[in-house]
Amino acid sequence: MSKGLPKRDEDYSLWYNELVKRADLAENSPVRGCMVIKPYGFAIWEKMQAILDEKFKDTGHSNAYFPLFIPKSYLSKEADHVEGFAKECAVVTHYRLKNDPDGKGVIVDPDAKLEEELIVRPTSETVIWNTYKNWIQSYRDLPILVNQWANVVRWEMRTRLFLRTTEFLWQEGHTAHATKQEAVDETVQMLHVYGDFVENHMALPVLKGVKTESERFAGAVDTFCIETLMQDGKALQAGTSHFLGQNFAKAFDVKFTNQEGKLDLVWGTSWGVSTRLMGALIMAHSDDFGLVLPPKLAPYQVVIVPIFKNDEQLVAISEKANKIKADLKAKGVTAKYDDRQTHKPGWKFAEYELKGVPLRIAIGPKDLENGTVEVARRDLLEKNTHNLDEGFPQMISDLLEEIQISIFNRAQTFKQENTHKADSYDEFKDIIENKGGFVYAHWDGTAETEEKIKNETKATIRCIPLEEDTEEGKCILTGNPSMRRVVFAK
Amino acid sequence: MSKGLPKRDEDYSLWYNELVKRADLAENSPVRGCMVIKPYGFAIWEKMQAILDEKFKDTGHSNAYFPLFIPKSYLSKEADHVEGFAKECAVVTHYRLKNDPDGKGVIVDPDAKLEEELIVRPTSETVIWNTYKNWIQSYRDLPILVNQWANVVRWEMRTRLFLRTTEFLWQEGHTAHATKQEAVDETVQMLHVYGDFVENHMALPVLKGVKTESERFAGAVDTFCIETLMQDGKALQAGTSHFLGQNFAKAFDVKFTNQEGKLDLVWGTSWGVSTRLMGALIMAHSDDFGLVLPPKLAPYQVVIVPIFKNDEQLVAISEKANKIKADLKAKGVTAKYDDRQTHKPGWKFAEYELKGVPLRIAIGPKDLENGTVEVARRDLLEKNTHNLDEGFPQMISDLLEEIQISIFNRAQTFKQENTHKADSYDEFKDIIENKGGFVYAHWDGTAETEEKIKNETKATIRCIPLEEDTEEGKCILTGNPSMRRVVFAK
Repeated sequence: MSKGLPKRDEDYSLWYNELVKRADLAENSPVRGCMVIKPYGFAIWEKMQAILDEKFKDTGHSNAYFPLFIPKSYLSKEADHVEGFAKECAVVTHYRLKNDPDGKGVIVDPDAKLEEELIVRPTSETVIWNTYKNWIQSYRDLPILVNQWANVVRWEMRTRLFLRTTEFLWQEGHTAHATKQEAVDETVQMLHVYGDFVENHMALPVLKGVKTESERFAGAVDTFCIETLMQDGKALQAGTSHFLGQNFAKAFDVKFTNQEGKLDLVWGTSWGVSTRLMGALIMAHSDDFGLVLPPKLAPYQVVIVPIFKNDEQLVAISEKANKIKADLKAKGVTAKYDDRQTHKPGWKFAEYELKGVPLRIAIGPKDLENGTVEVARRDLLEKNTHNLDEGFPQMISDLLEEIQISIFNRAQTFKQENTHKADSYDEFKDIIENKGGFVYAHWDGTAETEEKIKNETKATIRCIPLEEDTEEGKCILTGNPSMRRVVFAK
Repeated sequence: MSKGLPKRDEDYSLWYNELVKRADLAENSPVRGCMVIKPYGFAIWEKMQAILDEKFKDTGHSNAYFPLFIPKSYLSKEADHVEGFAKECAVVTHYRLKNDPDGKGVIVDPDAKLEEELIVRPTSETVIWNTYKNWIQSYRDLPILVNQWANVVRWEMRTRLFLRTTEFLWQEGHTAHATKQEAVDETVQMLHVYGDFVENHMALPVLKGVKTESERFAGAVDTFCIETLMQDGKALQAGTSHFLGQNFAKAFDVKFTNQEGKLDLVWGTSWGVSTRLMGALIMAHSDDFGLVLPPKLAPYQVVIVPIFKNDEQLVAISEKANKIKADLKAKGVTAKYDDRQTHKPGWKFAEYELKGVPLRIAIGPKDLENGTVEVARRDLLEKNTHNLDEGFPQMISDLLEEIQISIFNRAQTFKQENTHKADSYDEFKDIIENKGGFVYAHWDGTAETEEKIKNETKATIRCIPLEEDTEEGKCILTGNPSMRRVVFAK
């Protein structure tokens, strides 16, 4: 239970790992680097999926499904892409097992070796553009606005639940357009879709920007990103949207006849968010007692706990509790009534605190007499007694909205308090080392400077912000001229 | 277009393949045996998923996610399971590629060989029961009612789109129970959930039964199934629900302390349906003009096609069409308005016939004058003119319900007409060879007889029906006594 949860300021990393396991969100599987997403954790991911999926459809996209396996040779077709993705992959070399002639168990059948090895997809640009080649002949076939929900595999040496796992779940949008402008507009549109989702549903303020060349997606012309700030002052990339230019169209020879009757290469984008968002959600809002969930993503927004000494009391309380649950449902509020007799109320209180249920309603015999209930807010850990009157369901519904905003505001304040400007390298190093957070500083635009700062301070350029900025200055490291500030963070 | 679609009675198999491709449902990918599910096909699958998922949740199940990879040794832990599943699998042996020192491209890095090979899951019993071991200590932890939507891989030599592919999408439910009865009840409950779905949403009558030992799922004590009949008189297994007994609990040492404080093995079930259902849906109802979709699974139930000679007419028609679309939406009917000027009405008519849209509404200039529209039913290929009055949206909504029932009734009649009884082996062979369909016949209950009949006639025992049957008789092949009839089919 939460009693044993490590404290954030003592060991943030351990706190996170323990929280993920104890709140029944996910656990490590016996397969190195792969996780099991447990029902409670998966219910949150399903809410995220449903909301994002609706946003994708509202912006004209359809879902489809492409193969798990990619022929090895495909990865080499786009020069930058292979550098970025071909290295740490799961490689399928055989298609059959056979009984071990020497005894028990099975062995790989050496006669069942594939002619060309298959790679478990680390991302699907190659196999999708290879498919688009056959779908696109003329401008009439464009745009193609497709998304896929899928699992992908990137062999990771050091893994952390949700944040970096060998297998993870994600969505990957892959669109094809007749003009550069349309593709750029799509890239930016999806960045804003992600931003809206993270801010309005995950209650987490984002910083939107463009990656520098060295942090760009392998094969993209430009990578847009949303960056969020965690409680330990470190940045977490929550989503990316790539303008691919004509790179994959070139690599897979995808051409179309334009309205003037001329052959032209197709323009592309891709964009994705993954189960990493779960990590961001957990890290951003939770406290030493456990998870804090924004109401819009909570599997159940309210839990009702009966407090009773005998069956007679339980029966009377249950009648009231089920009525409350039904009234809340009518207001669009999801509630769970936990009448298990196998666990004590105190145990349940701690359990739902750990699981981050936004509101807890407790009902005891005295409440029945007085026509009241006790309502506890998870985010503020505050309890209040409320009359169970006609207005109660609406009050709960309003309170949930208030909590959603309150959690966002707290994260917003945190982000503001941890966003700094640095005008000299000494000041920069001091902030990065002692305060953390986002640091706006001038940079001369070279990969060398970026690399040197990274090596010396562990801070990377998270992005060149989309926000308007006309302030010129001098690079904190080299003193060379800079047109605008960029954002660094660990 | 549909003009070129092969005829069912000339080449049923070719008709199916061409229909799947031309109706934009799916296509073969360059990866052997793996398919690309195209947006229109995926939209149907998404409808199936949403309905099934709701039914699973209504019966108390939650979704979770387990790893794609299974350590090779796990497959050997359940003796029957390994025989059934360990053979034709995708085997991951390496986790890294490197640049080919001899030139272009990448090669598998021989230094990155896995100590133990990983199998891409063909089904997840092993990895899930290995996980349940840690989730279950006491009867308080039971039942576990979990489902997963996932991709699985079974290396197939001969593949057909949707029906048999190397990679396919499915859901697999895996439940754990304290008592045998509870597990049996769960197995049967899920069979009925599948049956309800296939009959009420896919408009396809099912035969429910139990598999014989030789057709049983590898590792199960009993396999329940729903069998459907296709237009070529062949049976298609649409879903299975397995009572696993304590087999996987034994194999993975999953024990619990029961209410009496004693250690006991856990009882299990698993159940699944896959993208194969798409194949059943297509094969069951479609005709020589293309797909026929039951309204409950159609991505859009109505398509509105304008017939116009100039922009002025199009503007006037569009106003009316958008009003119809909105009115239909208010009645819960999904409509698409296809005002593309790049394609002619005749082309569109054929296209939506091919794609199986249940109702087509055409509006021309004369309709505008008369306040009418032309409504065409896809299932009967009938056209009628209707007044565009107040009651029109309700009429369309009612008509869609009628179509849903009508498609089911047609399939029901077909099943009845193609269900036979055979009382001698000669009669049996004659029916199997010349009529097809389901054949009820007596069988002596031995695997030898089953095998011999299969080898001589290509007919297998599809199931021992759940229907009551007390008619005793003699085995059609051996003349040995039989307690009841079983159902054979090709």
